[in-house]
Amino acid sequence: MAKIRPNEPIPQNNLRQAEVPETAEVLGNPDGSAPAFALRIERCLFFFLPGVPREYHRIVQEMVIPRLLQANVVLRSRILQCYGVTESKLDEMVAPIREAHPEVRFGFRTKFPENHLSLAALAPDAAAAEESLARVEKLCREVLGDLVYGQDGVTFAQAVGERVAARGETICCAESCTGGLLAQLLTEVPGSSRWAAGGFVTYSYELKETALGVPHQMLQKHGAVSEQVARAMAEGARTRSEATWTLAITGIAGPEGGTPQKPVGTVWLALSGKNGTTAKLMHYRGDRGQVRLQSAYGALQLLREALRQGAS
Amino acid sequence: MAKIRPNEPIPQNNLRQAEVPETAEVLGNPDGSAPAFALRIERCLFFFLPGVPREYHRIVQEMVIPRLLQANVVLRSRILQCYGVTESKLDEMVAPIREAHPEVRFGFRTKFPENHLSLAALAPDAAAAEESLARVEKLCREVLGDLVYGQDGVTFAQAVGERVAARGETICCAESCTGGLLAQLLTEVPGSSRWAAGGFVTYSYELKETALGVPHQMLQKHGAVSEQVARAMAEGARTRSEATWTLAITGIAGPEGGTPQKPVGTVWLALSGKNGTTAKLMHYRGDRGQVRLQSAYGALQLLREALRQGAS
Repeated sequence: MAKIRPNEPIPQNNLRQAEVPETAEVLGNPDGSAPAFALRIERCLFFFLPGVPREYHRIVQEMVIPRLLQANVVLRSRILQCYGVTESKLDEMVAPIREAHPEVRFGFRTKFPENHLSLAALAPDAAAAEESLARVEKLCREVLGDLVYGQDGVTFAQAVGERVAARGETICCAESCTGGLLAQLLTEVPGSSRWAAGGFVTYSYELKETALGVPHQMLQKHGAVSEQVARAMAEGARTRSEATWTLAITGIAGPEGGTPQKPVGTVWLALSGKNGTTAKLMHYRGDRGQVRLQSAYGALQLLREALRQGAS
Repeated sequence: MAKIRPNEPIPQNNLRQAEVPETAEVLGNPDGSAPAFALRIERCLFFFLPGVPREYHRIVQEMVIPRLLQANVVLRSRILQCYGVTESKLDEMVAPIREAHPEVRFGFRTKFPENHLSLAALAPDAAAAEESLARVEKLCREVLGDLVYGQDGVTFAQAVGERVAARGETICCAESCTGGLLAQLLTEVPGSSRWAAGGFVTYSYELKETALGVPHQMLQKHGAVSEQVARAMAEGARTRSEATWTLAITGIAGPEGGTPQKPVGTVWLALSGKNGTTAKLMHYRGDRGQVRLQSAYGALQLLREALRQGAS
């Protein structure tokens, strides 16, 4: 996005962006310099949009879709966000509902490692669209159960964080292989300061010792990727942060560092709370980025399950 | 991506993905279950690809482009990755070179907050394509200077990290408003354990005190978003990590928390090294995600400038 630079001349390109066809309706661009415009040619209405995804999305949402919806039809939609199920399996689980309810359109989208089900009801009026949507959404939720973690754009970290906030509690992270990714997922949520205390990114052995108090001998004996170290990281972060819950992650994200005993994708997760510490061994597939992302999700899922079981 | 689940039947959808048209050449899919295939219809060669971006990109790179390049033309390309310049300005800076060298195609891509210039030379043989590309690349580098931080897919954090590694040094982070984003950008790079020690994500006041030793009174007097606290965070992380360089970030990412004195986008950055600590006040524009990303880049840029000036 162009910055305001009062001392520099306007680039030639920005001047060119100010030119639009004669009969066009200028829609503008709240986030950039290239304006969107609409042009009617005979019976067709064309929209001309900037290509930068962020700008494009906002203009489609705020300017294009409202114009399209001026037709005699009402759309109501819902996105059910799932974690812990593949796209194929999700599709198969809801297939009988889809077949019995052609009035609602089903769509699937993978946002690794999540899978989203979108439901869209078109009807001549709002009441009918809402009723169709509500009926089908209820059936889908019954089939999917806890696989649905949220709806309509919430993030997984946000869904977990807001349950923690509702209990007046807080989260702190102790990360090795995810290198700050979990803390970043928690704190990218606006308002997360209510429940996210922060975290310790102890990527090196030294920081595991100095920042979290993991015993040197434990690291030597069991290695950084071990149940003992995962537990010690979670407990060390809890002592140092006074957070209600701490989540620890230590694993081998790859591409290097794997061994026959601990191949790439081997990750120990630990959750520490008032009533003690639990740890879980995971074996993730995928590249470095995928292993890291799955590890962060896995840690959040540990906490999600603990909250669901009413633990403390 | 589908996981191996030996105890579950193959979903109907995966079975259907195994069916392709009769004369098709199956290209496969190294990352997913939906195979790509090619189909020749008279003089046209069609490629049918899965829509998941990760799968699509790899197949285009590894299977589609090589087939297209079997024609009698050689392509050589280079991406010059820039930070600190807008797309319009970048375009304007290289416009005279582009006009003088029609044998090389210029392309621009924004990857916020970076801007990339791609150069592509097509010629009948490899030597001619390489010569054209090298000539134009050299001219562009002369005009762009230090705005170019890397090429052909390196990340900004990686470019800075590898300069640090080459000096046998290390980096540790002390983050408030970026909440782990800087540590995540550093550690997402394969092999980053050579130069990334980790970091302290001190999102809460308490953690700034307990994890980094920022004095309680300093936080009370100056607020968390202040030069004093940025410096104290950088110095606290340096003492606790023994890293060569520490980068601290404390600011107001929004959407809430701004005041007339310190509006959203106000960010203090600090860099601490052997020879002392420097701090810099920034005012970023954009939404929460953009302020956070610019803050992380700003901190890396502080270090990049220090390294360029031969500081230590």
